[in-house]
Amino acid sequence: MTQPIDPEVARRHAEKMARRKEVQDAEVAEKTLQKGLLMVHTGPGKGKSTAAFGLALRTLGRGGRVGVVQFIKGAWSTGEQEALSAFGDRVSWHSMGEGFTWETQDLARDIAAATKAWEKACALMADPSFGLVILDELNIALRYEYLPLSEVVETLAGRRAALHVVVTGRNAKPELIEAADLVTEMTLVKHHFKAGVKAQEGIEF
Amino acid sequence: MTQPIDPEVARRHAEKMARRKEVQDAEVAEKTLQKGLLMVHTGPGKGKSTAAFGLALRTLGRGGRVGVVQFIKGAWSTGEQEALSAFGDRVSWHSMGEGFTWETQDLARDIAAATKAWEKACALMADPSFGLVILDELNIALRYEYLPLSEVVETLAGRRAALHVVVTGRNAKPELIEAADLVTEMTLVKHHFKAGVKAQEGIEF
Repeated sequence: MTQPIDPEVARRHAEKMARRKEVQDAEVAEKTLQKGLLMVHTGPGKGKSTAAFGLALRTLGRGGRVGVVQFIKGAWSTGEQEALSAFGDRVSWHSMGEGFTWETQDLARDIAAATKAWEKACALMADPSFGLVILDELNIALRYEYLPLSEVVETLAGRRAALHVVVTGRNAKPELIEAADLVTEMTLVKHHFKAGVKAQEGIEF
Repeated sequence: MTQPIDPEVARRHAEKMARRKEVQDAEVAEKTLQKGLLMVHTGPGKGKSTAAFGLALRTLGRGGRVGVVQFIKGAWSTGEQEALSAFGDRVSWHSMGEGFTWETQDLARDIAAATKAWEKACALMADPSFGLVILDELNIALRYEYLPLSEVVETLAGRRAALHVVVTGRNAKPELIEAADLVTEMTLVKHHFKAGVKAQEGIEF
Protein backbone atom coordinates (compact mmCIF):
# COMPACT_ATOMS: atom_id res chain seq x y z
CA MET A 1 0.00 0.00 0.00
CA THR A 2 2.88 2.40 0.74
CA GLN A 3 6.09 3.18 -1.18
CA PRO A 4 9.57 2.38 0.21
CA ILE A 5 10.89 5.42 2.11
CA ASP A 6 13.77 7.47 0.70
CA PRO A 7 16.46 7.48 3.48
CA GLU A 8 17.04 11.21 2.91
CA VAL A 9 13.31 11.90 3.43
CA ALA A 10 13.37 9.80 6.60
CA ARG A 11 16.44 11.65 7.91
CA ARG A 12 14.91 15.09 7.27
CA HIS A 13 11.68 13.94 8.95
CA ALA A 14 13.61 12.80 12.05
CA GLU A 15 15.49 16.12 12.24
CA LYS A 16 12.35 18.20 11.84
CA MET A 17 10.50 16.21 14.49
CA ALA A 18 13.45 16.44 16.93
CA ARG A 19 13.26 20.27 16.62
CA ARG A 20 9.47 20.13 17.05
CA LYS A 21 9.86 18.05 20.22
CA GLU A 22 12.26 20.59 21.77
CA VAL A 23 9.70 23.37 21.25
CA GLN A 24 6.86 21.19 22.55
CA ASP A 25 8.74 20.09 25.70
CA ALA A 26 9.75 23.68 26.49
CA GLU A 27 6.11 24.79 26.17
CA VAL A 28 4.85 22.03 28.49
CA ALA A 29 7.56 22.82 31.09
CA GLU A 30 6.38 26.45 31.23
CA LYS A 31 2.89 25.45 32.38
CA THR A 32 2.68 24.74 36.07
CA LEU A 33 -0.64 26.12 37.35
CA GLN A 34 -3.50 23.78 38.28
CA LYS A 35 -6.96 25.27 38.60
CA GLY A 36 -10.57 24.62 37.76
CA LEU A 37 -11.33 26.01 34.31
CA LEU A 38 -14.26 28.01 33.03
CA MET A 39 -14.78 26.72 29.49
CA VAL A 40 -17.16 28.09 26.85
CA HIS A 41 -18.29 26.19 23.72
CA THR A 42 -19.97 28.59 21.34
CA GLY A 43 -20.45 29.29 17.63
CA PRO A 44 -22.98 28.13 15.01
CA GLY A 45 -21.36 24.72 14.36
CA LYS A 46 -22.13 21.28 15.77
CA GLY A 47 -20.40 19.76 18.78
CA LYS A 48 -20.84 22.39 21.51
CA SER A 49 -22.91 20.20 23.87
CA THR A 50 -21.43 16.99 22.49
CA ALA A 51 -17.89 18.07 23.40
CA ALA A 52 -19.13 19.02 26.89
CA PHE A 53 -20.49 15.49 27.35
CA GLY A 54 -17.17 14.14 26.06
CA LEU A 55 -15.48 16.09 28.88
CA ALA A 56 -17.94 14.45 31.29
CA LEU A 57 -16.54 11.09 30.14
CA ARG A 58 -12.99 12.24 30.96
CA THR A 59 -13.98 13.38 34.44
CA LEU A 60 -15.89 10.11 35.06
CA GLY A 61 -12.92 8.08 33.80
CA ARG A 62 -10.72 9.83 36.38
CA GLY A 63 -13.16 9.04 39.20
CA GLY A 64 -14.92 12.42 39.46
CA ARG A 65 -18.60 13.40 39.66
CA VAL A 66 -20.40 15.44 36.99
CA GLY A 67 -23.39 17.77 37.29
CA VAL A 68 -25.47 18.69 34.24
CA VAL A 69 -28.09 21.43 34.00
CA GLN A 70 -29.88 21.85 30.69
CA PHE A 71 -31.33 25.35 30.41
CA ILE A 72 -33.34 24.92 27.22
CA LYS A 73 -33.82 21.24 26.55
CA GLY A 74 -36.42 19.69 28.78
CA ALA A 75 -39.13 17.29 27.84
CA TRP A 76 -37.32 14.95 25.45
CA SER A 77 -34.75 12.36 26.51
CA THR A 78 -31.42 12.15 24.73
CA GLY A 79 -28.93 9.41 23.96
CA GLU A 80 -26.21 11.01 26.08
CA GLN A 81 -28.49 11.26 29.11
CA GLU A 82 -29.44 7.60 28.71
CA ALA A 83 -25.79 6.55 28.34
CA LEU A 84 -24.56 8.62 31.30
CA SER A 85 -27.18 6.97 33.51
CA ALA A 86 -24.79 3.97 33.42
CA PHE A 87 -22.66 5.91 35.93
CA GLY A 88 -25.43 6.05 38.53
CA ASP A 89 -25.24 8.91 41.05
CA ARG A 90 -21.81 9.97 39.76
CA VAL A 91 -23.83 11.94 37.18
CA SER A 92 -26.48 14.37 38.45
CA TRP A 93 -28.62 15.33 35.44
CA HIS A 94 -31.22 18.11 35.43
CA SER A 95 -33.13 18.97 32.24
CA MET A 96 -34.87 22.13 33.36
CA GLY A 97 -35.81 23.87 30.14
CA GLU A 98 -39.23 24.05 28.57
CA GLY A 99 -37.92 23.51 25.04
CA PHE A 100 -36.70 26.04 22.54
CA THR A 101 -37.98 29.58 22.93
CA TRP A 102 -39.90 29.28 19.67
CA GLU A 103 -41.76 26.30 21.13
CA THR A 104 -42.91 27.92 24.38
CA GLN A 105 -43.66 31.39 22.90
CA ASP A 106 -44.12 32.55 26.50
CA LEU A 107 -41.50 34.89 27.96
CA ALA A 108 -42.62 34.68 31.61
CA ARG A 109 -42.52 30.89 31.48
CA ASP A 110 -39.04 30.94 29.87
CA ILE A 111 -37.72 33.28 32.57
CA ALA A 112 -39.19 31.18 35.38
CA ALA A 113 -37.63 27.99 33.92
CA ALA A 114 -34.22 29.67 33.46
CA THR A 115 -34.28 31.05 37.01
CA LYS A 116 -35.02 27.61 38.46
CA ALA A 117 -32.27 26.05 36.31
CA TRP A 118 -29.76 28.68 37.49
CA GLU A 119 -30.64 27.95 41.15
CA LYS A 120 -29.94 24.26 40.50
CA ALA A 121 -26.65 25.20 38.77
CA CYS A 122 -25.59 27.25 41.82
CA ALA A 123 -26.38 24.32 44.15
CA LEU A 124 -24.28 21.91 42.05
CA MET A 125 -21.37 24.36 41.80
CA ALA A 126 -21.42 24.82 45.60
CA ASP A 127 -21.30 21.04 46.23
CA PRO A 128 -17.62 20.03 46.54
CA SER A 129 -18.35 16.46 45.43
CA PHE A 130 -18.63 17.66 41.81
CA GLY A 131 -15.47 18.05 39.71
CA LEU A 132 -17.25 19.25 36.56
CA VAL A 133 -20.54 21.09 36.07
CA ILE A 134 -22.01 21.42 32.56
CA LEU A 135 -24.37 24.37 32.00
CA ASP A 136 -25.88 23.30 28.68
CA GLU A 137 -27.34 26.14 26.57
CA LEU A 138 -26.86 28.69 29.34
CA ASN A 139 -25.70 31.04 26.55
CA ILE A 140 -29.22 30.94 25.06
CA ALA A 141 -30.79 31.91 28.39
CA LEU A 142 -28.29 34.80 28.69
CA ARG A 143 -28.83 35.92 25.11
CA TYR A 144 -32.61 36.23 25.58
CA GLU A 145 -31.97 37.97 28.92
CA TYR A 146 -33.82 35.32 30.90
CA LEU A 147 -31.08 35.71 33.55
CA PRO A 148 -29.12 38.73 34.83
CA LEU A 149 -25.77 38.53 32.99
CA SER A 150 -23.60 40.27 35.59
CA GLU A 151 -24.83 38.05 38.43
CA VAL A 152 -24.24 34.88 36.36
CA VAL A 153 -20.72 35.90 35.27
CA GLU A 154 -19.79 36.94 38.81
CA THR A 155 -20.95 33.60 40.23
CA LEU A 156 -19.06 31.64 37.55
CA ALA A 157 -15.88 33.68 38.08
CA GLY A 158 -16.14 33.16 41.85
CA ARG A 159 -16.55 29.37 41.64
CA ARG A 160 -14.59 26.94 43.88
CA ALA A 161 -10.88 26.82 42.92
CA ALA A 162 -10.94 23.17 41.82
CA LEU A 163 -14.25 23.24 39.93
CA HIS A 164 -14.35 22.94 36.13
CA VAL A 165 -17.41 24.48 34.46
CA VAL A 166 -18.46 24.21 30.80
CA VAL A 167 -21.01 26.65 29.38
CA THR A 168 -22.48 25.83 25.96
CA GLY A 169 -24.66 27.57 23.39
CA ARG A 170 -24.43 29.99 20.46
CA ASN A 171 -23.75 33.69 20.85
CA ALA A 172 -21.77 33.62 24.10
CA LYS A 173 -21.82 37.08 25.69
CA PRO A 174 -18.52 39.04 25.55
CA GLU A 175 -18.56 39.38 29.34
CA LEU A 176 -18.62 35.59 29.71
CA ILE A 177 -15.82 35.15 27.12
CA GLU A 178 -13.78 37.69 29.07
CA ALA A 179 -14.21 35.68 32.30
CA ALA A 180 -13.48 32.29 30.66
CA ASP A 181 -10.17 30.40 30.64
CA LEU A 182 -10.89 28.50 27.43
CA VAL A 183 -13.27 29.47 24.65
CA THR A 184 -13.87 27.34 21.57
CA GLU A 185 -15.94 28.49 18.64
CA MET A 186 -17.53 25.67 16.62
CA THR A 187 -17.86 26.78 13.01
CA LEU A 188 -20.05 25.06 10.48
CA VAL A 189 -18.08 24.22 7.36
CA LYS A 190 -20.64 21.89 5.81
CA HIS A 191 -23.94 20.50 7.05
CA HIS A 192 -25.96 17.49 5.85
CA PHE A 193 -29.26 19.25 6.68
CA LYS A 194 -28.56 21.37 3.59
CA ALA A 195 -28.67 18.17 1.52
CA GLY A 196 -32.11 17.23 2.93
CA VAL A 197 -30.86 14.67 5.46
CA LYS A 198 -32.98 14.72 8.62
CA ALA A 199 -31.93 14.78 12.30
CA GLN A 200 -31.06 11.21 13.24
CA GLU A 201 -31.34 9.27 16.50
CA GLY A 202 -27.94 8.51 18.00
CA ILE A 203 -26.29 11.42 16.20
CA GLU A 204 -28.41 14.56 16.64
CA PHE A 205 -30.19 13.52 19.83
CA MET B 1 -33.72 38.42 40.73
CA THR B 2 -35.69 39.37 37.58
CA GLN B 3 -37.84 42.42 36.75
CA PRO B 4 -41.62 42.19 36.15
CA ILE B 5 -42.26 41.67 32.42
CA ASP B 6 -43.81 44.46 30.34
CA PRO B 7 -46.94 42.89 28.70
CA GLU B 8 -46.01 44.55 25.38
CA VAL B 9 -42.52 42.96 25.50
CA ALA B 10 -44.10 39.59 26.28
CA ARG B 11 -46.54 39.94 23.36
CA ARG B 12 -43.81 40.88 20.88
CA HIS B 13 -41.70 37.96 22.13
CA ALA B 14 -44.61 35.54 21.59
CA GLU B 15 -45.20 36.86 18.05
CA LYS B 16 -41.53 36.69 17.12
CA MET B 17 -41.21 33.14 18.44
CA ALA B 18 -44.38 32.04 16.62
CA ARG B 19 -42.81 33.21 13.33
CA ARG B 20 -39.53 31.53 14.25
CA LYS B 21 -41.38 28.25 14.92
CA GLU B 22 -43.04 28.33 11.47
CA VAL B 23 -39.63 28.65 9.80
CA GLN B 24 -38.15 25.94 12.01
CA ASP B 25 -40.99 23.46 11.42
CA ALA B 26 -40.84 24.04 7.66
CA GLU B 27 -37.09 23.36 7.68
CA VAL B 28 -37.48 20.11 9.66
CA ALA B 29 -40.29 18.90 7.35
CA GLU B 30 -38.02 19.33 4.31
CA LYS B 31 -35.50 16.83 5.67
CA THR B 32 -36.52 13.25 5.03
CA LEU B 33 -33.37 11.31 4.15
CA GLN B 34 -31.82 8.88 6.64
CA LYS B 35 -28.25 7.80 6.03
CA GLY B 36 -24.99 7.14 7.81
CA LEU B 37 -23.00 10.35 7.98
CA LEU B 38 -19.34 11.02 7.34
CA MET B 39 -18.44 13.69 9.90
CA VAL B 40 -15.17 15.60 10.18
CA HIS B 41 -14.04 17.55 13.28
CA THR B 42 -11.09 19.74 12.37
CA GLY B 43 -9.48 23.11 13.18
CA PRO B 44 -6.95 24.29 15.76
CA GLY B 45 -9.45 24.55 18.67
CA LYS B 46 -10.28 22.13 21.47
CA GLY B 47 -13.11 19.60 21.35
CA LYS B 48 -12.48 17.66 18.13
CA SER B 49 -11.94 14.26 19.77
CA THR B 50 -14.04 15.18 22.80
CA ALA B 51 -17.10 15.86 20.62
CA ALA B 52 -16.51 12.54 18.83
CA PHE B 53 -16.62 10.74 22.19
CA GLY B 54 -19.75 12.70 23.05
CA LEU B 55 -21.31 11.24 19.87
CA ALA B 56 -20.25 7.80 21.11
CA LEU B 57 -22.39 8.45 24.21
CA ARG B 58 -25.39 9.22 22.00
CA THR B 59 -24.98 6.05 19.98
CA LEU B 60 -24.53 3.99 23.18
CA GLY B 61 -27.60 5.63 24.73
CA ARG B 62 -29.62 4.51 21.69
CA GLY B 63 -28.40 0.92 22.00
CA GLY B 64 -25.70 0.95 19.30
CA ARG B 65 -22.07 -0.26 19.27
CA VAL B 66 -19.10 2.06 18.80
CA GLY B 67 -15.66 1.35 17.33
CA VAL B 68 -12.70 3.64 18.09
CA VAL B 69 -9.32 3.66 16.36
CA GLN B 70 -6.74 6.14 17.60
CA PHE B 71 -4.15 6.81 14.89
CA ILE B 72 -1.68 8.89 16.90
CA LYS B 73 -2.36 8.36 20.57
CA GLY B 74 -1.12 5.05 21.82
CA ALA B 75 0.76 4.35 24.99
CA TRP B 76 -1.08 6.52 27.50
CA SER B 77 -4.56 5.78 28.82
CA THR B 78 -7.23 8.48 28.83
CA GLY B 79 -10.23 9.32 30.97
CA GLU B 80 -12.66 8.76 28.10
CA GLN B 81 -11.25 5.29 27.37
CA GLU B 82 -11.55 4.38 31.05
CA ALA B 83 -15.14 5.71 31.22
CA LEU B 84 -16.26 4.00 28.00
CA SER B 85 -15.00 0.66 29.37
CA ALA B 86 -18.19 0.81 31.51
CA PHE B 87 -20.07 -0.22 28.34
CA GLY B 88 -18.15 -3.50 27.97
CA ASP B 89 -17.95 -4.96 24.46
CA ARG B 90 -20.38 -2.33 23.11
CA VAL B 91 -17.24 -0.19 22.74
CA SER B 92 -14.33 -1.63 20.76
CA TRP B 93 -11.31 0.60 21.48
CA HIS B 94 -7.98 0.44 19.62
CA SER B 95 -5.17 2.88 20.45
CA MET B 96 -2.79 2.08 17.63
CA GLY B 97 -0.53 5.11 17.41
CA GLU B 98 3.02 5.40 18.65
CA GLY B 99 2.53 8.89 20.04
CA PHE B 100 2.94 12.23 18.34
CA THR B 101 5.24 12.36 15.32
CA TRP B 102 7.66 14.54 17.25
CA GLU B 103 7.95 11.80 19.88
CA THR B 104 8.74 8.89 17.55
CA GLN B 105 10.97 10.86 15.13
CA ASP B 106 10.87 7.76 12.92
CA LEU B 107 8.94 7.96 9.63
CA ALA B 108 8.99 4.22 8.82
CA ARG B 109 7.61 3.39 12.27
CA ASP B 110 4.89 6.07 11.93
CA ILE B 111 3.83 4.70 8.54
CA ALA B 112 3.75 1.12 9.81
CA ALA B 113 1.61 2.14 12.80
CA ALA B 114 -0.80 4.18 10.63
CA THR B 115 -1.15 1.31 8.13
CA LYS B 116 -2.01 -1.14 10.90
CA ALA B 117 -4.51 1.33 12.39
CA TRP B 118 -6.17 1.82 8.99
CA GLU B 119 -6.53 -1.96 8.57
CA LYS B 120 -8.28 -2.10 11.95
CA ALA B 121 -10.50 0.83 10.91
CA CYS B 122 -11.51 -1.02 7.72
CA ALA B 123 -12.37 -4.15 9.73
CA LEU B 124 -14.59 -2.16 12.13
CA MET B 125 -16.33 -0.29 9.29
CA ALA B 126 -17.06 -3.61 7.55
CA ASP B 127 -18.62 -5.12 10.69
CA PRO B 128 -22.39 -4.41 10.59
CA SER B 129 -22.67 -4.59 14.39
CA PHE B 130 -21.11 -1.10 14.65
CA GLY B 131 -23.32 1.98 14.27
CA LEU B 132 -20.53 4.52 14.74
CA VAL B 133 -16.80 4.31 14.06
CA ILE B 134 -14.48 7.06 15.37
CA LEU B 135 -11.20 7.52 13.49
CA ASP B 136 -9.38 9.71 16.00
CA GLU B 137 -6.54 11.84 14.57
CA LEU B 138 -6.79 10.17 11.14
CA ASN B 139 -6.33 13.70 9.73
CA ILE B 140 -2.82 13.81 11.22
CA ALA B 141 -1.88 10.51 9.54
CA LEU B 142 -3.23 11.86 6.23
CA ARG B 143 -1.47 15.20 6.61
CA TYR B 144 1.93 13.55 7.09
CA GLU B 145 1.14 11.20 4.17
CA TYR B 146 1.40 8.08 6.32
CA LEU B 147 -1.59 6.73 4.36
CA PRO B 148 -2.63 7.06 0.69
CA LEU B 149 -5.28 9.81 0.71
CA SER B 150 -7.28 8.67 -2.33
CA GLU B 151 -7.65 5.12 -1.01
CA VAL B 152 -8.75 6.35 2.41
CA VAL B 153 -11.32 8.82 1.02
CA GLU B 154 -12.68 6.21 -1.40
CA THR B 155 -13.14 3.67 1.40
CA LEU B 156 -14.86 6.22 3.65
CA ALA B 157 -17.16 7.38 0.84
CA GLY B 158 -18.03 3.75 0.05
CA ARG B 159 -18.92 2.83 3.64
CA ARG B 160 -22.08 0.84 4.55
CA ALA B 161 -25.24 2.95 4.08
CA ALA B 162 -26.18 2.96 7.79
CA LEU B 163 -22.69 3.56 9.20
CA HIS B 164 -21.77 6.87 10.83
CA VAL B 165 -18.06 7.72 10.80
CA VAL B 166 -16.30 10.59 12.60
CA VAL B 167 -12.80 11.62 11.54
CA THR B 168 -10.90 13.99 13.85
CA GLY B 169 -7.69 16.01 13.71
CA ARG B 170 -6.35 19.34 12.52
CA ASN B 171 -5.78 20.19 8.90
CA ALA B 172 -8.41 17.93 7.31
CA LYS B 173 -7.57 17.37 3.62
CA PRO B 174 -9.84 19.17 1.11
CA GLU B 175 -10.62 15.80 -0.55
CA LEU B 176 -11.97 14.48 2.77
CA ILE B 177 -14.01 17.65 3.39
CA GLU B 178 -15.47 17.27 -0.10
CA ALA B 179 -16.56 13.67 0.66
CA ALA B 180 -17.99 14.53 4.11
CA ASP B 181 -21.64 15.20 5.03
CA LEU B 182 -20.85 17.36 8.05
CA VAL B 183 -17.66 19.30 8.75
CA THR B 184 -17.10 21.31 11.92
CA GLU B 185 -14.10 23.54 12.43
CA MET B 186 -13.13 24.07 16.07
CA THR B 187 -11.55 27.51 16.43
CA LEU B 188 -9.55 28.59 19.42
CA VAL B 189 -10.84 31.86 20.80
CA LYS B 190 -8.94 31.76 24.09
CA HIS B 191 -6.72 29.14 25.72
CA HIS B 192 -5.63 28.76 29.33
CA PHE B 193 -2.24 27.30 28.27
CA LYS B 194 -1.37 30.87 27.28
CA ALA B 195 -1.87 31.88 30.93
CA GLY B 196 0.59 29.19 32.14
CA VAL B 197 -2.05 26.67 33.22
CA LYS B 198 -0.88 23.10 32.60
CA ALA B 199 -2.72 20.16 30.98
CA GLN B 200 -4.98 18.70 33.66
CA GLU B 201 -6.20 15.17 34.33
CA GLY B 202 -9.92 14.80 33.64
CA ILE B 203 -9.96 17.74 31.23
CA GLU B 204 -7.09 17.41 28.75
CA PHE B 205 -6.64 13.64 29.01
